[in-house]
Amino acid sequence: MIKRIQGGVTAAKGFEAASTAAGIKYQNREDMAMIYSQSPCRTAGTFTTNVVKAAPVKWDRNQVESGKDAHAVVINSGIANACTGQEGMDYCRQTAQAAGEALGISRDSVLVASTGVIGMQLPMERVCAGIRAMTPQLGHSLEKGEAASKAIMTTDTKNKEAAVEFEIGGKTVTIGGMCKGSGMIHPNMCTMLSFVTTDAAISKELLLEALREDVKDTYNMISVDGDTSTNDTVLLLANGQAGNPEIREKGEDYHTFCQALNLVNETLAKKIAGDGEGCTALFEVKIVGAESKEQAVTLAKSVITSNLTKAAIFGHDANWGRILCAMGYSGAEFDPEKVDLFFESKAGKLQIIQNGVALDYSEEEATKILSQPEVRAVADIKMGQCEATAWGCDLTFDYVKINADYRS
Amino acid sequence: MIKRIQGGVTAAKGFEAASTAAGIKYQNREDMAMIYSQSPCRTAGTFTTNVVKAAPVKWDRNQVESGKDAHAVVINSGIANACTGQEGMDYCRQTAQAAGEALGISRDSVLVASTGVIGMQLPMERVCAGIRAMTPQLGHSLEKGEAASKAIMTTDTKNKEAAVEFEIGGKTVTIGGMCKGSGMIHPNMCTMLSFVTTDAAISKELLLEALREDVKDTYNMISVDGDTSTNDTVLLLANGQAGNPEIREKGEDYHTFCQALNLVNETLAKKIAGDGEGCTALFEVKIVGAESKEQAVTLAKSVITSNLTKAAIFGHDANWGRILCAMGYSGAEFDPEKVDLFFESKAGKLQIIQNGVALDYSEEEATKILSQPEVRAVADIKMGQCEATAWGCDLTFDYVKINADYRS
Repeated sequence: MIKRIQGGVTAAKGFEAASTAAGIKYQNREDMAMIYSQSPCRTAGTFTTNVVKAAPVKWDRNQVESGKDAHAVVINSGIANACTGQEGMDYCRQTAQAAGEALGISRDSVLVASTGVIGMQLPMERVCAGIRAMTPQLGHSLEKGEAASKAIMTTDTKNKEAAVEFEIGGKTVTIGGMCKGSGMIHPNMCTMLSFVTTDAAISKELLLEALREDVKDTYNMISVDGDTSTNDTVLLLANGQAGNPEIREKGEDYHTFCQALNLVNETLAKKIAGDGEGCTALFEVKIVGAESKEQAVTLAKSVITSNLTKAAIFGHDANWGRILCAMGYSGAEFDPEKVDLFFESKAGKLQIIQNGVALDYSEEEATKILSQPEVRAVADIKMGQCEATAWGCDLTFDYVKINADYRS
Repeated sequence: MIKRIQGGVTAAKGFEAASTAAGIKYQNREDMAMIYSQSPCRTAGTFTTNVVKAAPVKWDRNQVESGKDAHAVVINSGIANACTGQEGMDYCRQTAQAAGEALGISRDSVLVASTGVIGMQLPMERVCAGIRAMTPQLGHSLEKGEAASKAIMTTDTKNKEAAVEFEIGGKTVTIGGMCKGSGMIHPNMCTMLSFVTTDAAISKELLLEALREDVKDTYNMISVDGDTSTNDTVLLLANGQAGNPEIREKGEDYHTFCQALNLVNETLAKKIAGDGEGCTALFEVKIVGAESKEQAVTLAKSVITSNLTKAAIFGHDANWGRILCAMGYSGAEFDPEKVDLFFESKAGKLQIIQNGVALDYSEEEATKILSQPEVRAVADIKMGQCEATAWGCDLTFDYVKINADYRS
């Protein structure tokens, strides 16, 4: 029994947060956040596959892979610290050093994350002043977590949190998280960041495996514009304070933990897709009847990243030809003349094509269905039992406006 | 010595064209064209790699691969005849049959091509009436070729022709062509079509090889939105009327022919990219210093299809971070900290980054360079001697407008 609850990174026992207006780049708003655990955390991370990796990605990956426990995460918005050379790496070290001194913990237990423009150097004096300002304000309340989730926003229009509660061995375990961004890359910011905390006691190996597997179905299934960021980072911190018998093998407890983690990650991932730059709708694409999971993933992701399909969704236009076209160039094999396609939303469900050919459906009804803030296309390719779901958004005038004007 | 000349598909000896307003879908404009050769042509073709192939693509591929000579091509705009099932295939056969009867040639020597919306069936009575109307109007003049290039337009804003003249064995040989579309896929139309005619005498094997090789450097290096069409078709027809000694081996004559073909194809391909839906600029990306051609191609195509980069070009913003980011997720390996990047146009040339880090360049000067109708980014990755060039365009409000509204 997994229950959704209020809250984000401070929902789990022993986790605290703080935020501040450090003046990194934005004015008149908070732009730094800190996550702190009262006890050291086993940590799992997944990072961008981009060859061009931001300095904080290199820092965190190194820390996480070395197997060290993490105690705190320092995050800034406004500047991505990407393409910043050796100087950018030095700034990660200095940030961790400053946080270590302020919190009385080892520099090597501090992770860092940045989001914003590429190529600018961080103003280190302000970063260090921000750390000193946040440290005495750390607190476990949900409000502290919420404020942190707002401080890490860039072009996001909404802050993004999720949390769940469940039981393991008679103990209540909590997983909570916050994220920012709008895709595997956030179009402007070049960054999707997600921070998930849990008080579960779980071995480091299983923590990492749970995250690695779940990321495939959640964050890796969203896209706003197909551009994979230099900064993408998902961190999962577990401090064990729930007091549950430690999860050390892939039994029922691990399964429950994975389900709960999936609920948090899927919720956060969908919030990113639904808040894609300039978008007016969350667009979900589900492929069913696939021969393999891989085939379903390839097809779903191809549709979700098709500019033509995204523009049609913006126009509330049931332009099914573009969806078939995007499936066709995905690289996956299937028989176009067997495909059934449906559109659905709160306004109803409508079959558009059967065996690859259009039915005599009502365009008016299709437009009604596609005019909702959350719309879904379901394609059945009738080859097997596997399926996959991807999430994206529509392509709008505002997307172009935001991205043509961003830097200036 | 290859010389550019006026004209398009009727530039080469023995080629005629006609066009008419058949009322397929558009009103008050010509929407059908016919290309006819006074003598049978050896024919080479390259077609979309999309699993969902339009009926005319299947028809033409079958005809070309069977090795039959072609005598005529019938083209319509407005409806793509894609996702039309067996009925769509029957219509290709009926179109070829009607043209064969009108022209007094075999049905199997007629190729067909369509461009427009996916999923609608062709109005066959109008198509056949169009063929009968065009047949008596066939003519060799440049005006006939120009009218044909206009009849095949969809959302194109300009008709697209190119032609060159050169000598082989003391005989003047001509290659001319026309095309339509705005990318490997034309965003709305799901179609890029290109028709190239030549009076060169050349063996069928070398004709096909010349086309296959050249397509890699020309049509396959353009993109408007990354969506690969169901209808993409390039046809190359050679009727031998120049009277040159037949090109049968890969000697100097073949080399000259390939150079001339490249000039025509590159010119046509750039015209497509520069007339991408809603675009305000032709955007060229050149990668130099690559280890292999393949690496350079991968990097150039990744940048040219990046929505973020395209939106920045629309905003005349020297947002080099997005270019490095797109190179980074391309799948090609390189060292980001060795990259030099330059922007150039008629307004000048400016180095933006050196060894992966930004120089102290003038944003004002960069914006001036990027405000031209043709702009170029050159990235040197300092690994070897190979290079590649790709062509695309900016991402604009009008692109979204055209594609959100298209079908309705």
